[in-house]
Amino acid sequence: MTAPKVQLLLTGNELMTGDIVDSNSAMIAEQLKELGLEISRKVTIADDLTLLVNEINQLAEQADILIINGGLGPTVDDLTAQALAQATKVELTEHAHALEHVTAWCKKRGATLNKPNLKQAILPQDCDIIANRQGSAVGFKVNHLNCDIYCTPGVPRELKTMLIEQIKPDIIKKIPAELVTDVTRLQVFGLGESTLQKMVDEQLPDWPNEIDLGFRAGMPLLEVKLTTNSQQAHQQKIYWQEKMSQLLGDHLIAKIEDTPLSLAKHVLKNLTKNNLTITTAESCTGGLIASMLTKEAGASQSFEAGFVTYSNAMKTKLLGVDEKILNEHGAVSKATVIAMATGALAQSSADLVIAVSGIAGPEGGSKEKPVGTVWLAWGSKDNLKTVGLLMPLPRSYFQKYVASIGLDLIRRDLIASQESPQYIIERLLK
Amino acid sequence: MTAPKVQLLLTGNELMTGDIVDSNSAMIAEQLKELGLEISRKVTIADDLTLLVNEINQLAEQADILIINGGLGPTVDDLTAQALAQATKVELTEHAHALEHVTAWCKKRGATLNKPNLKQAILPQDCDIIANRQGSAVGFKVNHLNCDIYCTPGVPRELKTMLIEQIKPDIIKKIPAELVTDVTRLQVFGLGESTLQKMVDEQLPDWPNEIDLGFRAGMPLLEVKLTTNSQQAHQQKIYWQEKMSQLLGDHLIAKIEDTPLSLAKHVLKNLTKNNLTITTAESCTGGLIASMLTKEAGASQSFEAGFVTYSNAMKTKLLGVDEKILNEHGAVSKATVIAMATGALAQSSADLVIAVSGIAGPEGGSKEKPVGTVWLAWGSKDNLKTVGLLMPLPRSYFQKYVASIGLDLIRRDLIASQESPQYIIERLLK
Repeated sequence: MTAPKVQLLLTGNELMTGDIVDSNSAMIAEQLKELGLEISRKVTIADDLTLLVNEINQLAEQADILIINGGLGPTVDDLTAQALAQATKVELTEHAHALEHVTAWCKKRGATLNKPNLKQAILPQDCDIIANRQGSAVGFKVNHLNCDIYCTPGVPRELKTMLIEQIKPDIIKKIPAELVTDVTRLQVFGLGESTLQKMVDEQLPDWPNEIDLGFRAGMPLLEVKLTTNSQQAHQQKIYWQEKMSQLLGDHLIAKIEDTPLSLAKHVLKNLTKNNLTITTAESCTGGLIASMLTKEAGASQSFEAGFVTYSNAMKTKLLGVDEKILNEHGAVSKATVIAMATGALAQSSADLVIAVSGIAGPEGGSKEKPVGTVWLAWGSKDNLKTVGLLMPLPRSYFQKYVASIGLDLIRRDLIASQESPQYIIERLLK
Repeated sequence: MTAPKVQLLLTGNELMTGDIVDSNSAMIAEQLKELGLEISRKVTIADDLTLLVNEINQLAEQADILIINGGLGPTVDDLTAQALAQATKVELTEHAHALEHVTAWCKKRGATLNKPNLKQAILPQDCDIIANRQGSAVGFKVNHLNCDIYCTPGVPRELKTMLIEQIKPDIIKKIPAELVTDVTRLQVFGLGESTLQKMVDEQLPDWPNEIDLGFRAGMPLLEVKLTTNSQQAHQQKIYWQEKMSQLLGDHLIAKIEDTPLSLAKHVLKNLTKNNLTITTAESCTGGLIASMLTKEAGASQSFEAGFVTYSNAMKTKLLGVDEKILNEHGAVSKATVIAMATGALAQSSADLVIAVSGIAGPEGGSKEKPVGTVWLAWGSKDNLKTVGLLMPLPRSYFQKYVASIGLDLIRRDLIASQESPQYIIERLLK
């Protein structure tokens, strides 16, 4: 028995003009992949009734499931309901449930129940309504040419909720029980896809085909996905997930339970749990580490102060870095970051520190210290560690990656890691 | 005479699994829009030879120009050359120029000129090579069923360069002279699309149809695009651009000449030009303003130090904010940001300062000071100004928007603006 064949139809002028990037289809694809379903074809067209009707018929003929996204709104350009009615040769009628929904929606927001808004309740006769608890337009489903057609709203947040809460549970009924998928997601930092794939090929050569190994590159975290499609494989996975964990060592940050947490959040959770505070002394990262920490709600439990000492004079004035050190070793040196770290700890009375000084580029490099040279110091007053690295990346990538390295070094400290981390750069400008 | 009809074909398994978001088609669409061309249809399929050949034939039949993106790489999944050869019923041969290119490319990078790499030089017989100065795979062009088919690399950076330097100049030859487009792009901050459209409808009711008014929403800058398609309209535009400028007032940051500059960059350019330095004193924005400034190369000319004083104790310790002020008025108050600003100026010896203190949420609000309450102080020691705002946005949007407001207030100071800015929130969670 095979999995249902899925295709995607996206409609909307704004998708054709380049004014927005289509993130919805990637999201739909990712959600369906968790059910073990692949999308074989995806068509995007403008708001044109004739094109839409033709496309619907063409796609419905080829697919078992067709997801249509967009065109449910109140404007004259929103044509999905009309196109579907025409394609399936039924009338458009006012649906009681949809009308109820849009009426309540407008009332709650003090919006007028005007003609455009009411249009969102005029749908193909006998379609099934799909609830939308976050927007004014309900979704709907029809069956046409043996294909289940789901019509979904264009607003990403509404689409995602509808997929997770309504559509996937409906689709899953059509998937043979033995094909139901389980996805294990691991957050990894410091290794890239190619490196990891190579490590698996070399050190886990018996990796079973039934456990699909996938990657989702992020900046800076890599997501490793182990996907299995049968009860038997789900069982096998327990063993191989353990093998993967051993392979990754402390490059593995965490398994994702519901939502992935940022590196900063992982660090803050650990700090807060251990009643520790942290400060930051930044030169080339210019406030980014502090910003990554304070982006997280609850940062105030473990973060009170950050220093951005962008010039040598300010390293001396605010952190007490001795001018002699700066003159003798330069700003980008082991001695300087130690002094920056020590000064920041003294000034802030924090337990831990991350200090960074480097050359973000594109200017500022030299033969001895090319662009990408960076020193980090981290730890506590009595246990300060340093490392010098070369990260020849474009400026903003450099800053993001180096800031993440700083956070990762503290993370490893907090879990008492005995390993020496690698920080490998792959796929720079993809 | 009408503009050529354009369609798009994207190929690649990674586009179908949701692992990456397709930003290439938005970029192609935006580039072509500058020529006055619209994409009527866009199909995305997986790496499958049969599907590709069918799609190529279908699309080439309907379009005058077909842009294919992806499938030019060295792996077995890269099938574009093969599919095109099959669709056009020609042989695949090794192209001398393509071979030269990939050989030189590998040599320069010390990479092996192996079979996968050489595959990138095996192309449909008699196709036209399109240079790729940033990647190993050349692009190529064929004509099939009266359609010009351009095959382009999937790497965004390579695609963009090839579009701008090679493909658009080629396409432009096919566009009737009288249809050549001109796009004027304006950077705006503080007003959203709906507000601006409303302002135009009310205050410039005679806005001509020949000048297409478009928007490209960004966080935080809005791009306003005035597109004209004829010599006559280009001329008209000079007058209406001036009208638009007057309408926008100092909400208009700049006209985009080549690449858009960030708000921080605009501020830094002005500071550097006037030999002024700036410091930052941040609480709720937690280092973001400093980070936005230091993201820009050359920031060191005008930025030496930033303070992140996330707790009350640190506001007192590092910036000298009197405990009495904190006790009497609270951290989020006019008095506190004035003290923060004054302290930061004294500590850093900078000419100007931006100080921020607010409630980023989701926790921390109260009846008197709900989440989103924020105070800013900015200016010089002898001319410090303050403003209190309510920006009820999700935490990270709040931080980004408020940080941008801080930079915008300094920007207006530097251009001696006499206007009172609006900071309007639109389209929160789209």
